[in-house]
Amino acid sequence: MTRSTAGDPAPDAPAVVLDAGTLHASVTSPVLTTMTFLNEITFRYPDAISFAPGRPYEGFFDADDIPRLVQAYIDHLRDSGSSEDEIRTALFQYGHTAGQIRELVAGMLRVDEDIDVPPESVVVTVGCQEAVLLVLRALCRDPDDVILVDSPCYVGVTGAARLLEIPVVAVPGTGSGVDLDALERTVAELTARGKRVRALYVVPDCSNPTGVSMERADREALLAAAARLDLLLLEDNPYGLFSGRRRPTLKSLDERQQVIYLGSFAKSAFPGARVGYVVADQRVTGLAADSGPAGDGLLAAELAKIKSMITVNTPSVSQAVIGAMLLAGDGGLREANAVAAKHYQDMMGRIRDGLEREFPAAERPRSQVSWNHPDGGFFLTLDVPFDADDTALDISAREFGVLWTPMRYFHLGHDGDRQIRLSCSYLTETQVDEGIRRLAAMIRHLST
Amino acid sequence: MTRSTAGDPAPDAPAVVLDAGTLHASVTSPVLTTMTFLNEITFRYPDAISFAPGRPYEGFFDADDIPRLVQAYIDHLRDSGSSEDEIRTALFQYGHTAGQIRELVAGMLRVDEDIDVPPESVVVTVGCQEAVLLVLRALCRDPDDVILVDSPCYVGVTGAARLLEIPVVAVPGTGSGVDLDALERTVAELTARGKRVRALYVVPDCSNPTGVSMERADREALLAAAARLDLLLLEDNPYGLFSGRRRPTLKSLDERQQVIYLGSFAKSAFPGARVGYVVADQRVTGLAADSGPAGDGLLAAELAKIKSMITVNTPSVSQAVIGAMLLAGDGGLREANAVAAKHYQDMMGRIRDGLEREFPAAERPRSQVSWNHPDGGFFLTLDVPFDADDTALDISAREFGVLWTPMRYFHLGHDGDRQIRLSCSYLTETQVDEGIRRLAAMIRHLST
Repeated sequence: MTRSTAGDPAPDAPAVVLDAGTLHASVTSPVLTTMTFLNEITFRYPDAISFAPGRPYEGFFDADDIPRLVQAYIDHLRDSGSSEDEIRTALFQYGHTAGQIRELVAGMLRVDEDIDVPPESVVVTVGCQEAVLLVLRALCRDPDDVILVDSPCYVGVTGAARLLEIPVVAVPGTGSGVDLDALERTVAELTARGKRVRALYVVPDCSNPTGVSMERADREALLAAAARLDLLLLEDNPYGLFSGRRRPTLKSLDERQQVIYLGSFAKSAFPGARVGYVVADQRVTGLAADSGPAGDGLLAAELAKIKSMITVNTPSVSQAVIGAMLLAGDGGLREANAVAAKHYQDMMGRIRDGLEREFPAAERPRSQVSWNHPDGGFFLTLDVPFDADDTALDISAREFGVLWTPMRYFHLGHDGDRQIRLSCSYLTETQVDEGIRRLAAMIRHLST
Repeated sequence: MTRSTAGDPAPDAPAVVLDAGTLHASVTSPVLTTMTFLNEITFRYPDAISFAPGRPYEGFFDADDIPRLVQAYIDHLRDSGSSEDEIRTALFQYGHTAGQIRELVAGMLRVDEDIDVPPESVVVTVGCQEAVLLVLRALCRDPDDVILVDSPCYVGVTGAARLLEIPVVAVPGTGSGVDLDALERTVAELTARGKRVRALYVVPDCSNPTGVSMERADREALLAAAARLDLLLLEDNPYGLFSGRRRPTLKSLDERQQVIYLGSFAKSAFPGARVGYVVADQRVTGLAADSGPAGDGLLAAELAKIKSMITVNTPSVSQAVIGAMLLAGDGGLREANAVAAKHYQDMMGRIRDGLEREFPAAERPRSQVSWNHPDGGFFLTLDVPFDADDTALDISAREFGVLWTPMRYFHLGHDGDRQIRLSCSYLTETQVDEGIRRLAAMIRHLST
């Protein structure tokens, strides 16, 4: 090392202090603060009853299952003819960037969702959040590229876009799906302004945050509109297994590879494993010759390249646990989740029964409290006659011991300011009953 | 959903095909193609002897250890007084974004590296790659922000910067550290051009790719230069435990929080767990009031916010395995890695002995083949008299059955075009001996 000719620094140079304004805007962005809040709030108010987090119910799980599941996956590799050295390498080493349980994931999609795609079109990711990041990064090339979202929209998408500085434009929902006229208008306006509209993000089954599911005819109309508008659809489906009525995924109706499918094991297996995936069976042309036969490949392979710069590969240990859960039944998870789905539907019914008791239909014009009726999933939407903001939430947590999520977090504009997202997924029956009593007291307090 | 008034699409609309040119440049960037290559090459040529990957030796590992380690961590939680419900939640649910083994990591840093930092300054990440991404994202606010790297530089850093579109500027190394005159000149030139130079990335111990370690005096001079230049140092230390001679980390010498420390368990525990971490004990001011007492916090908390949009949290299963490995000894991993460190040093010696036999000193002016002498780590650098490019590597793999890494991958310019990185970490003695014979045959073939 060459010694600098410049003088030594003062020995008492002060410690480095960074002003938040010198850091990337995402650090101070409300979206990221919100996501951290959503993730941390349960830790912050341990005694409050929380309708906030999109966490699955854990009553059906035993921590001691995890070592057994890892062992079951190892035994499966052994039974499938892998040598001891191959097994050690599969668990110990850096693995394939796109994942080692791609075949099992593709098998699950056939069993659970009638989605028939080659394993090569699957990339196993560290939660669905990484999958979202990969897709946004791959699709958006320059500052003129725009992503549309069905509004209100899961904050993981707007947050990932913020990190990558990708503009997000909201397309209003109708309450039961995407407003296709608004979609066409938005695309036309953006195109006229020189923007390249790349994709529309949508959660057709038991949407986060509203809980609403799109009907089959509306899905078909959305696919047709996307084809006309030359738009990819990003279908995110974490809650499909918990729907009260099974509807076809957009991907299962997709005959021309216009749907990129985003999946998660956080609700159907367990969140701590942090395993999600993306199905990207779109053909990519114009790649360098060594990328595949004739320089063509699948979008999944390009997403894997990006993943190599984010997490390198999904932990083998997590993949082993999820792999073992997929192997345990018929290759899918729908059957294994039937009890959980029933539980969530019961809890959602119980929340609505509680609300009905506290805010009877006859008094609703006066109370101005109403709610929607999703047939499954984790969430429902509550309309209240006051600003459901952080201040209200703080009062609710401290004075009433009940937590919920302000719906405004999921809006890019000011819609949803007087709405609350309630989650039915995390609580027991007793907690729901007591929680609704506390919630009603809080609502009455803030309504006066 | 509102039906669009526009007509239906042609029922035979062709399948979506994406041209690579419409995707983000990172997809076609040589850096990302390279990283994927580095990760996948061992799979592509299963019969070749590979000096390419930075993979740890797996001979000391047993896959069946993993379930035992998970169970050991669960038992530890039990013994520490956690209730069964708390244990289930810790393993099953979404966890703290910053990680659940922060205390254990901070303890290890005290034992192994004389680094004394509060657990709150640690963020546990999905491999060190995610840590790099978090730090680059947080520090670089706008297009004028620049990151410096000690060149040649690990591709994970240049690749992550490519994803985020952060400009990277190389500062040439001297062969034994950073050229401080070049550093000061580079900072002055960039500042004069209106750039904001945010940090210098450096691997002071057993660098990837060169294998070189910086001496203590050079580390102190670098810290002093960074203080004068108002520059953060990003110290990446995956190979420190395998150094032939222990030197103090920059972070242990850091008295004014000017070092952000990046760590990995991929070499010292196992890569498949995908656990790394970042130490960011810098104070951040000017945050919103609810971010902490008086609106001040640690940079680590801001990194965690960004992490919530990338992987949400590091898998509990991976953290459990690494946690158990940390609990197994004295809280550190240095002792547990003594045998592995000795193995790597023996293998590096064996590589040099083989090279000495094939290319004796007396003939070196004619052969033009020479190499450097790192005292530890995974890598050494070989100078050859031909372009060590992908074509050469392809010939080497197909015709000679031996793999290595072109050093040009690690350079931003054209230095290193006639250099090879050899890894000593992954092979057995027999493989090293046969591999060096093949390598020598390949070098003679391509030198003529």
